[in-house]
Amino acid sequence: MPLPHLTQARAPLTREVEVMNQHGERETISIPAERDLTVYVDKRELVTLMTLGAHPEWLVLGYLLNQRLIASADEIESITVDWDVGAASVKTRHGIDHIEERTSKRVVTTGCGQGSVFGNLMDEIDSIQLPASMVLRQSQLYAIVNAIRLKESTYKSAGSVHACALFLGEDLQLFVEDVGRHNAVDTIAGWMPLQTSLPQGDKIFYTTGRLTSEMVIKSAQMGVAVVVSRSGITQMGLDVAQRVGLCAIGRATNKHFLCYTHPERLVLDAVPPAAPAVRERAASPS
Amino acid sequence: MPLPHLTQARAPLTREVEVMNQHGERETISIPAERDLTVYVDKRELVTLMTLGAHPEWLVLGYLLNQRLIASADEIESITVDWDVGAASVKTRHGIDHIEERTSKRVVTTGCGQGSVFGNLMDEIDSIQLPASMVLRQSQLYAIVNAIRLKESTYKSAGSVHACALFLGEDLQLFVEDVGRHNAVDTIAGWMPLQTSLPQGDKIFYTTGRLTSEMVIKSAQMGVAVVVSRSGITQMGLDVAQRVGLCAIGRATNKHFLCYTHPERLVLDAVPPAAPAVRERAASPS
Repeated sequence: MPLPHLTQARAPLTREVEVMNQHGERETISIPAERDLTVYVDKRELVTLMTLGAHPEWLVLGYLLNQRLIASADEIESITVDWDVGAASVKTRHGIDHIEERTSKRVVTTGCGQGSVFGNLMDEIDSIQLPASMVLRQSQLYAIVNAIRLKESTYKSAGSVHACALFLGEDLQLFVEDVGRHNAVDTIAGWMPLQTSLPQGDKIFYTTGRLTSEMVIKSAQMGVAVVVSRSGITQMGLDVAQRVGLCAIGRATNKHFLCYTHPERLVLDAVPPAAPAVRERAASPS
Repeated sequence: MPLPHLTQARAPLTREVEVMNQHGERETISIPAERDLTVYVDKRELVTLMTLGAHPEWLVLGYLLNQRLIASADEIESITVDWDVGAASVKTRHGIDHIEERTSKRVVTTGCGQGSVFGNLMDEIDSIQLPASMVLRQSQLYAIVNAIRLKESTYKSAGSVHACALFLGEDLQLFVEDVGRHNAVDTIAGWMPLQTSLPQGDKIFYTTGRLTSEMVIKSAQMGVAVVVSRSGITQMGLDVAQRVGLCAIGRATNKHFLCYTHPERLVLDAVPPAAPAVRERAASPS
């Protein structure tokens, strides 16, 4: 089956606005763009996503995959995004069975807001098997944290976005930012099946956001066995990671981190010298 | 009409877990609790919320109000929360008209995830009028930021939660934390109508999270004309604040802040002495 045809709709990622600071002075700063994208599947309205808009076609494809509305990218014939009308038109090859029914159950998730998940993502947990061979070395973890730190980004210029990234070992494959962190991971999930050949290496997923259950499940669905976050973890995130065999690492800044689950996947090849115990915490829960 | 009868279901807010740090050492830390609460309205399942669980009854009431499923608290006869089964049973006095229809349209919002809003919150914008008299003094803003800083919290003990708070002038009325930041604001929205007498003063809303369109609209619906955030603003949050006449203040830490919209509501009575321009940015987009 051929890959889907995708447009390459682009739009500015930041906008300049005038603000007043604590001295009563006017200054001009950048804020991230945020636009609504209404997704139509075979001309039927499905959902409206609020997005930065960097990669809308991958976002829509990943959304459909992560919501389990499609099982693989080749079920899609085309995705056409038109920012003038804020619409993504998805054409499937053979329709989506029982789409009404499968989008009727609604779970409002943590994701820092009230995220909506169609169907029962949690039902998938027990079908996921992550090979025991997939590991991350501590030295690679530090290289990942450093690669993210050096990345030029919308966050650096405008703040207020979440980022995530896919690594193979310590090699960065794709870095995505969005106003919604689930959009960022969905975008990676949409990009991945379009790659006809990915290099070798265990997949590592990095996110600036908290490790919620939804983030953990989406990672596991992408075949990722190690996730790394600058933030912390929620209780359900931890429970799900434990259950699917995923190694969840949080509070990863500089040389610090906490490994919450499955430490057997983390090879301690770069233990830093002992120092007075000072643990860092992100300034914001994100 | 009498106020609704509410249970006072309580549950632990944190959980201890064992983690491994960068030295390969085991340590015990606290993480926030996260539980699912399925809301039934007159025995019909409405939604499942993921919550810390501090004030589930106020959360449910505020959720119904903020989703515009009810217009006032006295439409509710009782809310009964039972954590053993993770259920909130809502009994209305006269039912909710057209509930099926009104919960069918789904907008996935930014809220750091994919938040779900029933109906068209945005349609309400033009009906909101915030009196021009409602202002905040810069000295009060600094008192608010300091009051939040001093607050004992789940965040300080376990991280990974968002907080919000309602102030009257600089006087703290209610401080709420939750794993989902929209839950936190919904909880305040549910608490407010239960207060038979609030002291005088303009309502000020504080949030640790970004000022998204949803956060701005919910604030305006509560009659709040000034919102303060430690984080930044999104484009739609800014657009909506501009339109409803709400003063949005972000990046508020120490003596710094940025006023994004309607600076005429901010009285500059405590301008700090000039210093080399160093602007702070939160470590995480939250």
